Amino acid sequence: MSDNDKTENLGEFDLIAAYFRPLTEGRPEALDLEDDAGLLTPPEGSQLVVTTDALVAGQHFLPDTPAESLAVKALGVNLSDLAAMGATPAAYTLALAAPKPIPPGWLQNFAAGLGDMQAAHGIFLLGGDTVTTSGPLTLSVTALGWVGAGAALCRSGAQVGDDLYVSGTIGDAALGLLVARDGRKLAGDGGDAFLRGRYDRPQPRTTLGPRLVGIATSCIDVSDGLAADVGHITKTSGLGAEISVRDLPLSDAARSALTDDPGLLQTLVTGGDDYELAFTAPPSAAGTIAAAAGESGVPVTRIGTMTAEPDVRLLGPGGAALDLGQGGYRHF
Amino acid sequence: MSDNDKTENLGEFDLIAAYFRPLTEGRPEALDLEDDAGLLTPPEGSQLVVTTDALVAGQHFLPDTPAESLAVKALGVNLSDLAAMGATPAAYTLALAAPKPIPPGWLQNFAAGLGDMQAAHGIFLLGGDTVTTSGPLTLSVTALGWVGAGAALCRSGAQVGDDLYVSGTIGDAALGLLVARDGRKLAGDGGDAFLRGRYDRPQPRTTLGPRLVGIATSCIDVSDGLAADVGHITKTSGLGAEISVRDLPLSDAARSALTDDPGLLQTLVTGGDDYELAFTAPPSAAGTIAAAAGESGVPVTRIGTMTAEPDVRLLGPGGAALDLGQGGYRHF
Repeated sequence: MSDNDKTENLGEFDLIAAYFRPLTEGRPEALDLEDDAGLLTPPEGSQLVVTTDALVAGQHFLPDTPAESLAVKALGVNLSDLAAMGATPAAYTLALAAPKPIPPGWLQNFAAGLGDMQAAHGIFLLGGDTVTTSGPLTLSVTALGWVGAGAALCRSGAQVGDDLYVSGTIGDAALGLLVARDGRKLAGDGGDAFLRGRYDRPQPRTTLGPRLVGIATSCIDVSDGLAADVGHITKTSGLGAEISVRDLPLSDAARSALTDDPGLLQTLVTGGDDYELAFTAPPSAAGTIAAAAGESGVPVTRIGTMTAEPDVRLLGPGGAALDLGQGGYRHF
Repeated sequence: MSDNDKTENLGEFDLIAAYFRPLTEGRPEALDLEDDAGLLTPPEGSQLVVTTDALVAGQHFLPDTPAESLAVKALGVNLSDLAAMGATPAAYTLALAAPKPIPPGWLQNFAAGLGDMQAAHGIFLLGGDTVTTSGPLTLSVTALGWVGAGAALCRSGAQVGDDLYVSGTIGDAALGLLVARDGRKLAGDGGDAFLRGRYDRPQPRTTLGPRLVGIATSCIDVSDGLAADVGHITKTSGLGAEISVRDLPLSDAARSALTDDPGLLQTLVTGGDDYELAFTAPPSAAGTIAAAAGESGVPVTRIGTMTAEPDVRLLGPGGAALDLGQGGYRHF
């Protein structure tokens, strides 16, 4: 870590010692955050997978987001990218640009959130930088993982006739944003709290992604919305897709909200921040995929088929196509 | 790269295509910046070296710094960290948080600066993220390199009686900051331009660092000032050091400035941003080090000795110790 700035009345060295060094979990690779860089040893026959995502307060999270949720989100979006490549996460670096003064307890809660995610996903802090800024809180995480050489899952590779799957449930986070930002009442107190939690605390599918290596023909994480991200697969693979709305996996809370307001279907299909995996595989792989889902503890649902005609088509409950507008969705 | 924001009237996809995709140099590892992450293949028997540094406008560079210099600096400080570990640089990721509107031509000049550094140091853009911010321009670079397993240079490892060396010349950047920020006239127009260039455009010693593997007993890059960074070596190695002021390698411009104002010696020794390497090695390695310096094209100078007594002592021209105050330096 670097030492150019001071925050929260602590020198950066003290701050690193108090909050960040424990996150290295004593791994020798992090060199106690005292050296110029961290060291990782590649597993034999592996490739390194690297992803960097930045989050800016007011742009990528609501300014009142608790420090703990923020840490979970910053790591979560990056780990989700690793999972989508089939990589097993190993470690991460963090660049934290914080406005002064940092509120009392903020760093402690932030570190606690990082610690929770580390424990859940088997990673540790390898290095980073802590600086002050006159602007909004800005977090940049680089996540590092490993995948067998040549085996990484990509967006291209889907074939006509492949089944299209998603993990978990779709649309919760988009509904959670309506609850959190707009104060909407969608699914009762318990349901709304669940939806908000799905927005604030993404659960990257790091146990599922690596198990899809050698099985899935393409994979992406659903960060921009199901329709858009399946669109990335179809475009990169030079195909189209048909998604059956009836087969979309919905949480009880999302189903309840949709029953009250069928117009929310658009939000479910086009809203971002699911951090589920969308992937394709030949029909013959159905049993293997069910087994991978079981081993990973992440439910997986077949929602459609890859087609030769370009574009992503949504098939309504009666089997008729629904119009998917410019990045969005409209009923006829 | 992610695609949450728009900048400079281009969608982020267009912006990536126009300015950042060319910086991948067509390397398959970067997957055209279209996938979720980049892929690097470890050389056999290697360890991965990872460093992340963030730069915030107004904190780490003057707000009027040209885009090209900024790119050089953001990459330079990270590549310098790799060099200090003895790593050969491979690739980097970039998180760019830019205030809107981005001035016309800014991205083009910024990309040109990145391209220059890539060519000089044999690296390419592997991935990243481009977002907008309501605050100051913030750059976070993660640089990735490789070093033989177990061979990385660290700050610890120096032995009593080891020679202490530095590469290049010391103090130019600190004087350049006085020229750039305070409008000081120090070494004539040509000399002042040289000093400012040394501040704006660090030259990380990526050709020298890897050649010191197996030779140097410790190594650090001089980013916080020679005295402080040698202090990091002495503290981590549990030793002290004596530096002969007379032996410090100074540029003609720095020597000219020092002749006019001997008080600038403090600035030379304690000012940051040199991005030279300070390292230790046993006296028996002198010939090998001279050969490594020759092969790398980077001059190297012996400036002192590692001692058993703690602390960094500066020996003045007459051989008497000068007082090195709290992170700084004072004449008696």
